[in-house]
Amino acid sequence: MKILVMGSVALDSVKAPTGSVRDTVGGSAFYFAHGARPFASTAVVSIVGKDFPQSEFQDMDALGIDRTGLAVGEGDTFRWEGRYLQDMNVRETIKTELNVLEEFVPFVPEHLRKAKIVFLANMEPETQLAVLDQMKRPWLTACDTMNLWIEHHRDRLLELLGRVDLFFLNDEEARMLTGKNSLVAAGKAVRELGPQWVVLKRGEHGSMLFGGGNPFVLSAFPTTSVQDPTGAGDSFAGGCLGYLAWRGSDSEESLRASLAVGGVVASFTVEEFGANRLKGLTLEEIAGRAKAFAEMTSFAVDWYSLQEGIGKGSS
Amino acid sequence: MKILVMGSVALDSVKAPTGSVRDTVGGSAFYFAHGARPFASTAVVSIVGKDFPQSEFQDMDALGIDRTGLAVGEGDTFRWEGRYLQDMNVRETIKTELNVLEEFVPFVPEHLRKAKIVFLANMEPETQLAVLDQMKRPWLTACDTMNLWIEHHRDRLLELLGRVDLFFLNDEEARMLTGKNSLVAAGKAVRELGPQWVVLKRGEHGSMLFGGGNPFVLSAFPTTSVQDPTGAGDSFAGGCLGYLAWRGSDSEESLRASLAVGGVVASFTVEEFGANRLKGLTLEEIAGRAKAFAEMTSFAVDWYSLQEGIGKGSS
Repeated sequence: MKILVMGSVALDSVKAPTGSVRDTVGGSAFYFAHGARPFASTAVVSIVGKDFPQSEFQDMDALGIDRTGLAVGEGDTFRWEGRYLQDMNVRETIKTELNVLEEFVPFVPEHLRKAKIVFLANMEPETQLAVLDQMKRPWLTACDTMNLWIEHHRDRLLELLGRVDLFFLNDEEARMLTGKNSLVAAGKAVRELGPQWVVLKRGEHGSMLFGGGNPFVLSAFPTTSVQDPTGAGDSFAGGCLGYLAWRGSDSEESLRASLAVGGVVASFTVEEFGANRLKGLTLEEIAGRAKAFAEMTSFAVDWYSLQEGIGKGSS
Repeated sequence: MKILVMGSVALDSVKAPTGSVRDTVGGSAFYFAHGARPFASTAVVSIVGKDFPQSEFQDMDALGIDRTGLAVGEGDTFRWEGRYLQDMNVRETIKTELNVLEEFVPFVPEHLRKAKIVFLANMEPETQLAVLDQMKRPWLTACDTMNLWIEHHRDRLLELLGRVDLFFLNDEEARMLTGKNSLVAAGKAVRELGPQWVVLKRGEHGSMLFGGGNPFVLSAFPTTSVQDPTGAGDSFAGGCLGYLAWRGSDSEESLRASLAVGGVVASFTVEEFGANRLKGLTLEEIAGRAKAFAEMTSFAVDWYSLQEGIGKGSS
């Protein structure tokens, strides 16, 4: 199954307590594509500038990432500069230079319009809708968003939410969008806005899935070495949709498993600065960690004996 | 198996975005005992003042909580006043009046010294050690602590940690105690201080267990209605040790399950102000939620097909 992602490709400068890096390639579409490509053929629709490193094009080609939809515009590549505080869950944006992204009108090349899975990474809802309009009956559509669009482009965002199957957002965005403080209540309320499935991303605290019977709750994969959280959320979504493409299934069981796989992919992402770790990531490594993750989260409560009161008072 | 808990019994005044309450009975030992008592015979060692409500004694008696170790001192009961911010994970202490707790010297009545399980709730390490010295070969010992003792009574705390099997602490305390930012690294480092098992409490983000093979990571039970987080951590520990008493087992499997049961008990705690919800809590209710919790956290990644590359490129 082919996966198409529309979003940003950026040059990121990141400072963290663990180190820093300048002008490393990133952006939502870039991280998503690198999270998805181990599983399925992945194509990027985005724009970069004349200053984008040639070697990165070559790396994408070598990884089989389709960049026929990656335009090269006049001017410079989108730049983002930010830093993480001692508590790496807190991020401050220092500077954003939109550059070529400012006038970006997404164009989906003809051969990509039949992609079965579409991911609309965080971008103005107008732009996300423009991509959806070009697609020919995708099997599964998903999107992300951010606080800016929730506040200032709510109507268009709601229009988009009526047209996607799967909505990825973080806890803060869910609270903002619904006005509900409880994550469970917020997750349920987001579903009522349209998407059949809602994935709440909670960073180092894991993720939740709404849309099946009970909510599904999952911890983050416990990695010992967080270097740079940038791209974790997008590569998480990439791993999720990559796994669904691999399985060719959107059942609740597959969706639950996809969150675990996404969490594993994200855990690799954060262990190095930039997308370096993702470039060499193999399915075998993902499988190994997914297996360990299942073991690390499993438990068996003897609820039957509790329910029946068997054992009470034994000493 | 009998469980003995030493800790505070308090009159709490709590303000939260969801409401407020004055002089409701709480305290670490009180919450712990109410979390443990559905599973096993539980006894409290603590002190209250002359102002402690008679009706609370009667309630404890009705629930079978042994209060022969609950002294009634001259003066007033320990009082704690605090409030929760909009983000209910953030708590501010407004006022603490130690009152009778100031001169508290714990005395364990003779018939309780053979209790098989001992929980030393957060209290000056000196006081915790004084209880341990009175016990006769307990089967399982556990303790909690707080930032104050980590900073100012580190030596005595380390002495205590060398004598307990199970150590409950929150993420902030683990980082402070070990100087490690990563929770996984911190959890492992805490184990090296003595306890065979370390339980990291992470509030609404769940809990982690260190001491077996892989770390065990668990989300919090997703409750929709958090009214008052006070007592969540202590009733969590009560549920954990209660379940271990019920099972009569300290295997890794039982410990993992005990965290899930503790999480379920804590989820009931936070759904009402004070300990009200815990007073009426039945094993059947706990079992029902534990069963749902197992379902809500289970997933099955087809890691084998990933590892073998089976399915890649199917469309």
